[in-house]
Amino acid sequence: MYAPGDVRVEDREDPKIFEPTDAIIRITATCICGSDLWPYRGVEPVDHNPMGHEYIGIVEETGDDVKNVKIGDFVVGSFVISDNTCEICQAGFQSKCVHAEFVAQIGTQAERARIPHADGTLVTTPGEPPADLVPSLLAASDVLGTGWFAADAAQAGPGKTVAVVGDGAVGLMAILAAKQLGAERVIAMSRHAERQKLARYYGATDIVEERGEDGVAKVKELTGGLGAHSVVEAVGTQESFMQAVGTTRGGGHLGYVGVNYDVKIPGIELFFAGIHTLGGPAPVRRYLPDLIQLIWDRKIDPGKVFDLTLPLEQAAAGYRAMDERRATKVLLTL
Amino acid sequence: MYAPGDVRVEDREDPKIFEPTDAIIRITATCICGSDLWPYRGVEPVDHNPMGHEYIGIVEETGDDVKNVKIGDFVVGSFVISDNTCEICQAGFQSKCVHAEFVAQIGTQAERARIPHADGTLVTTPGEPPADLVPSLLAASDVLGTGWFAADAAQAGPGKTVAVVGDGAVGLMAILAAKQLGAERVIAMSRHAERQKLARYYGATDIVEERGEDGVAKVKELTGGLGAHSVVEAVGTQESFMQAVGTTRGGGHLGYVGVNYDVKIPGIELFFAGIHTLGGPAPVRRYLPDLIQLIWDRKIDPGKVFDLTLPLEQAAAGYRAMDERRATKVLLTL
Repeated sequence: MYAPGDVRVEDREDPKIFEPTDAIIRITATCICGSDLWPYRGVEPVDHNPMGHEYIGIVEETGDDVKNVKIGDFVVGSFVISDNTCEICQAGFQSKCVHAEFVAQIGTQAERARIPHADGTLVTTPGEPPADLVPSLLAASDVLGTGWFAADAAQAGPGKTVAVVGDGAVGLMAILAAKQLGAERVIAMSRHAERQKLARYYGATDIVEERGEDGVAKVKELTGGLGAHSVVEAVGTQESFMQAVGTTRGGGHLGYVGVNYDVKIPGIELFFAGIHTLGGPAPVRRYLPDLIQLIWDRKIDPGKVFDLTLPLEQAAAGYRAMDERRATKVLLTL
Repeated sequence: MYAPGDVRVEDREDPKIFEPTDAIIRITATCICGSDLWPYRGVEPVDHNPMGHEYIGIVEETGDDVKNVKIGDFVVGSFVISDNTCEICQAGFQSKCVHAEFVAQIGTQAERARIPHADGTLVTTPGEPPADLVPSLLAASDVLGTGWFAADAAQAGPGKTVAVVGDGAVGLMAILAAKQLGAERVIAMSRHAERQKLARYYGATDIVEERGEDGVAKVKELTGGLGAHSVVEAVGTQESFMQAVGTTRGGGHLGYVGVNYDVKIPGIELFFAGIHTLGGPAPVRRYLPDLIQLIWDRKIDPGKVFDLTLPLEQAAAGYRAMDERRATKVLLTL
């Protein structure tokens, strides 16, 4: 991305092994993330940056210390590099690993990428995936893993009513996750007919179109005045965050997976809400082995979240489609 | 409190039973809370308000529906009214009960008080307490219960390093709780010699005098660069809250039990911290039975947090002493 709105696909030097823990992978599919729109729209600075942090592909080369993946393996990787051995990783928070690094700075909207700490970041699939599983496996790299973390952070589970604020790709994946985790009821807060349809497909039992205070009132009405046990915040604005806080019952759990730089949470409101919160860049690596298996066994199909597929060369058109909301999420083929 | 700084003790009408779930108690000891200083200092509005929300005493009268306490029982009550039967109470969040009401609005710096939902709010002691247990039982009503909740919210426990931001009465009680909950290491963030002494008495293993970013750096230094597993925020200012966020390791737990009206949490900082938070008015009622037993068995002595005792008539002098930091916490006898 040369500048906001200016995406170009051009030849760059092939990546090389720098550290003995690195691997080079040939990317077979990648995609555009909602967060890639921040620099595209000029909300975050950008200046000739490589782009992309979601990826699946084949290991082409490994550093001398790499043991868990070998040349020829098909792999899915997390959007955050992790060694998966430090104390923080062992506690399940690989996105806060002492060696954490955002793959976005490497750029996987590309033919090849160098992945540091390959052993701790990449997870092999049972084999080369059939074509129809490619979108779902790619989704595991971030959007599914992030939605899953959000639902888990909100403690979605049996007997629980889960409300999901936001019907973007992450929100839809949180709905899928809430259902898989056994939630009794899943309320999708959405006002777009197409997304509502997908929300219901993934497991939403109720749709609330109202936003802000009206949205809070509606969820309370649906939950005997108490609010939802579990709430996922998957938008990231001031209004949506406070809507999520208000929607959570006292003692309930709020999982949030993105906030913009303008969000200022009034401490006193969060305090009197009396709720648990857990947020941050999702530790996707924690969930990857299970998510890959669920996809491989065709128990979940997160890949449906992609509604436009383009060759990598047409990445610019993909950004435009997402920016103009003509697409929820764009898959780029190689 | 007639106005900020103007506390008077005067005769008021005796409370009466209004609802069949009410009880009237004769208060035998009460105290002044750090939060009572907010209106005293003009930070919160006050206009001829009754004061006080911590109390122990003897049941003098009960409404027709009261079953769990009877006339003559010695009781300790939470500073928040709760029915202890609704779904929120059953989940352990009695301070968010559907019938929640702050006892501060009733005022227990008084000879008698009407306690709504007596069955769900009051807990009987094994008998009339010996004089030396009075301060500790009184502490259970709020300051101990709140500190305990904070430590529990921070998931203090075996193998954990707990950092406590703030050396006021609640912070000291959180230290006591962290030790009781089995924490391996307890770091008190305090710069007052007397409070450091009490912090060590209650179980602090380390003292950090630095504040803000320096305090964060010091705790990181003490924890292999990672930060504490569990952090208690017991001050409530912008600086102390962000110090607590910074002190918590990725994936760690922050428990907070009070924030002032000016605190605005930058969403992006909380997000990238990647931590669990739980805060709010403490559900003291959840912990009361266990805390009373621990005190009765002389396993904990939270009463040491009171360093000035005055008769109720001299309440104004008690407020002055706390406002001028000549006392940590003032007990008022009747």
